[in-house]
Amino acid sequence: MTRTEPAGLPLGDDFHLYDTTLRDGAQREGISYSVGDKLAVARLLDELGVGFIEGGWPGALPKDTEFFARAASGELILKHAALVAFGSTRKAGVQAAEDKQVRALLDAQAPVVTLVAKSDRRHIERALRVDVDEACAMVRDTVAFLVGEGRRVFLDAEHFFDGYAFDPDTSLRVLDAAATAGADVVVLCDTNGGRLPLGLAETVREVSERTGFRLGIHCQDDTSCAVANSIAAVQAGATHVQCTANGYGERAGNADLFAVTGNLVTKLGMSVLPTGAEAELTRVSHALAEIANIAPDTHQAYVGASAFAHKAGLHASAIKVDPLLYNHIDPSSVGNDMRVLVTEMAGRASLELKGRELGVDLAGRPEALTNAVGKIKRLEAEGWSFEAADASLELLLRREVDGPVAPPFTLESYRVVLDHRSDGEVISEATVKVHVGGERVIATAEGNGPVHALDAALRKALSPSLSWLDSVELADYKVRILPGHPGTDAVTRVLVNSGDGDSEWTTVGVHGNIVEASWLALCDALVHKSLRV
Amino acid sequence: MTRTEPAGLPLGDDFHLYDTTLRDGAQREGISYSVGDKLAVARLLDELGVGFIEGGWPGALPKDTEFFARAASGELILKHAALVAFGSTRKAGVQAAEDKQVRALLDAQAPVVTLVAKSDRRHIERALRVDVDEACAMVRDTVAFLVGEGRRVFLDAEHFFDGYAFDPDTSLRVLDAAATAGADVVVLCDTNGGRLPLGLAETVREVSERTGFRLGIHCQDDTSCAVANSIAAVQAGATHVQCTANGYGERAGNADLFAVTGNLVTKLGMSVLPTGAEAELTRVSHALAEIANIAPDTHQAYVGASAFAHKAGLHASAIKVDPLLYNHIDPSSVGNDMRVLVTEMAGRASLELKGRELGVDLAGRPEALTNAVGKIKRLEAEGWSFEAADASLELLLRREVDGPVAPPFTLESYRVVLDHRSDGEVISEATVKVHVGGERVIATAEGNGPVHALDAALRKALSPSLSWLDSVELADYKVRILPGHPGTDAVTRVLVNSGDGDSEWTTVGVHGNIVEASWLALCDALVHKSLRV
Repeated sequence: MTRTEPAGLPLGDDFHLYDTTLRDGAQREGISYSVGDKLAVARLLDELGVGFIEGGWPGALPKDTEFFARAASGELILKHAALVAFGSTRKAGVQAAEDKQVRALLDAQAPVVTLVAKSDRRHIERALRVDVDEACAMVRDTVAFLVGEGRRVFLDAEHFFDGYAFDPDTSLRVLDAAATAGADVVVLCDTNGGRLPLGLAETVREVSERTGFRLGIHCQDDTSCAVANSIAAVQAGATHVQCTANGYGERAGNADLFAVTGNLVTKLGMSVLPTGAEAELTRVSHALAEIANIAPDTHQAYVGASAFAHKAGLHASAIKVDPLLYNHIDPSSVGNDMRVLVTEMAGRASLELKGRELGVDLAGRPEALTNAVGKIKRLEAEGWSFEAADASLELLLRREVDGPVAPPFTLESYRVVLDHRSDGEVISEATVKVHVGGERVIATAEGNGPVHALDAALRKALSPSLSWLDSVELADYKVRILPGHPGTDAVTRVLVNSGDGDSEWTTVGVHGNIVEASWLALCDALVHKSLRV
Repeated sequence: MTRTEPAGLPLGDDFHLYDTTLRDGAQREGISYSVGDKLAVARLLDELGVGFIEGGWPGALPKDTEFFARAASGELILKHAALVAFGSTRKAGVQAAEDKQVRALLDAQAPVVTLVAKSDRRHIERALRVDVDEACAMVRDTVAFLVGEGRRVFLDAEHFFDGYAFDPDTSLRVLDAAATAGADVVVLCDTNGGRLPLGLAETVREVSERTGFRLGIHCQDDTSCAVANSIAAVQAGATHVQCTANGYGERAGNADLFAVTGNLVTKLGMSVLPTGAEAELTRVSHALAEIANIAPDTHQAYVGASAFAHKAGLHASAIKVDPLLYNHIDPSSVGNDMRVLVTEMAGRASLELKGRELGVDLAGRPEALTNAVGKIKRLEAEGWSFEAADASLELLLRREVDGPVAPPFTLESYRVVLDHRSDGEVISEATVKVHVGGERVIATAEGNGPVHALDAALRKALSPSLSWLDSVELADYKVRILPGHPGTDAVTRVLVNSGDGDSEWTTVGVHGNIVEASWLALCDALVHKSLRV
């Protein structure tokens, strides 16, 4: 194997956008990537154009070992990024070439290796239980061995900032051991995440001046400053920044790749992604949340669904004048949208604006607008929320403007029976009685749960009459239990996301009974589709 | 009404911790406070000891008008905080004393008024549509009028940083109009949230030097730097910082009160809360999330449930040496806990530590430990998660250590019937057949949903035999739909939080059928309780 070309092409090697979602991000509570998930994450990050993708810790975690093996076997073809294997330096008292973990790093066949080493004297002496000389030798030997084997090597200097504050000489000796042995970048890590930007920037500048080494930065979010600290470090001279998608990571998490990238590009004017790739930030962020199986943070900077959503009446009327007066950037530059929210605070002006967005003209219809505002307020008091359910909102507005919307069918009744039998089997069966195309139809179906069974029975009853029904799929289904106010029962709010291949739409249902709430959302989804066929 | 004493006692007036959860925070998508909610929020913030509580915008929002009326009538007694009414300056071409909105600010009877005024020339000319002279007169007149009426007045200089970058003279003239008319603090607002710490700190320092005014800071989180920007502004000389609980607010939100306070106290060594109140940060944060009806952010700095949770095997073994080597502060200082997480990444050392936390000794039981690790891995692959379900985990570990746990009852079968009748009524009915105390019992009950009916039927069947059952209540119920892997069906994960007045415990159930998943979690909850009676 020959030494890899400088990675991060086509942007060159001057600045490194380095992602560690697959290693440090995977330490977030609740994340558990399969090897397939890891390959999918790496492909998305490469599509976005990050320079380095840290894939995991081969030799320490079996899944990570398998990930590198499958990547090397051709399952992962990277266009922009270099793949990085992460691991620790040799153990005390062993030769690097003989160390099993170090060998696993070589076996992973990644062109880049990032080694982690303790750079705080207290950690060296109390957790690692060696003296500083041996700690430096462990770094020096391992870096030199891997460089000799043709790898590009970065060093993560763990607990650097705390260590430097406690005993700067030890911390600098660790950096020096790595750099003189051939490490290209020494990465200053705020491992416990306790730092603030002004002080951290000062330390980065000082270390840069004292050592002249190429510096990287790795921040945790325990002071809620991981993004700010990363940016401040870049402003102070770091040219390599380690992030995770959506800030996933242990405890409060890491620096969010999307916020860091958004800031570097739109605030500092840096080119850290291939041309035009910024417009993919929102999509990639949401896709990575999907794979991690974590609901996207709607209020995430740059890429959150609410990041450019305006609710206050104050703003909504002024936004008509010039959207850029009220947004820090053009939302489309990061692939996001400006949205106007429907809530009791927004009032008539916002609802009119929202209606226009949904294709319902309320401009000349003051009475319809008044009725719609009143109805929304009443429903919101009962637990409904239209902020994420545009399709249900559109139906509500249409009913005020055009009168009753003819539904494609009407319900007479349904019954769902759930049986946990004495043999342990659980069965869900639903029967619907509906009127469609002038006929009364009864249909029964089974499903793996009550809502699935109900959906199946309804489709069975309707599809002979409604030819478009087969194209409609239930894409996503969310349930939220809303605690009742004192003296009232809890209600359940269900959001149903439907798709037909061309578009997606979301509907909402609220009821004390989860199945009835789901039914209401399912019906709205079909009525919404029927208006478009 | 006489002018209020300096607020923020017993801390004096040198530094203002100013909360705007009830006004700016309420603009977060999804939040809709009732007046009762607002009073509860204000009481919690006062308990924590913030200096100022901005209650809303009287005269503009009916709920806010009512909030101030009820507060003034004696429903809100504040120990530490001064209540603040927020509003805009007089309209163009009217006298302040004649302006309806300004009168509403007086009528609110709050001792402090915060006025918002545009301080960006583009906003003055294009949104407000007046010239800079009139904009300054609007500020000057309104401040002078309110001060003359005995109010303490602060000025929120909206869009200050963008305005100052575009045309510093206009922005400074607006500050000057307020300060010379008697405003105590001029608050520099990063309204669009587009700023970064190093540049923002420079501007704050420059404005402080050029004007000598007492400066405040108000940051939005659009660059994910609201907390960092607020802290940087304080380091640059601001002595008044506006935050919202948990960072609630429009778009990406505001600076999080808890992270800002945590940083000011533990990093800058400032006393911004009454003695000992820092230890209430976690509790108050979670209580305010409850009232806002937003799931607490588990990864929030300082106060999140995961803020001090360690998952990586690397750390878990080292934590035994000294917890402070791996936490940036002592978690108990902010009322939080260190937790050890159970996941496939953590391995044996963490599970042993976790067992000790739960009272199950795995130290001398290597085989039980191996079996438990294997079982957890298998279950996690099926969608189970024990990270939030300590009671279910304890049962799992006990079964490995002590053998089968005798359940207080066994199930033969259950049936749930949901009827949406032709008259529109929806009925849920459940029948259970169980064996308890040597007898076979059949019971049927109704509920407002399938799980409620099942819970009711089970209680009806068991309570004659199990005297402790009546004390157990289902306190919270959460549902998560987990998308299936390609080719598999989605499964539902249910978390049930139970309580008996003395303690609370959480159990988990996973199944393709939501009712069966709920059943599994309910059963674990009762078995867990039965081990303690």
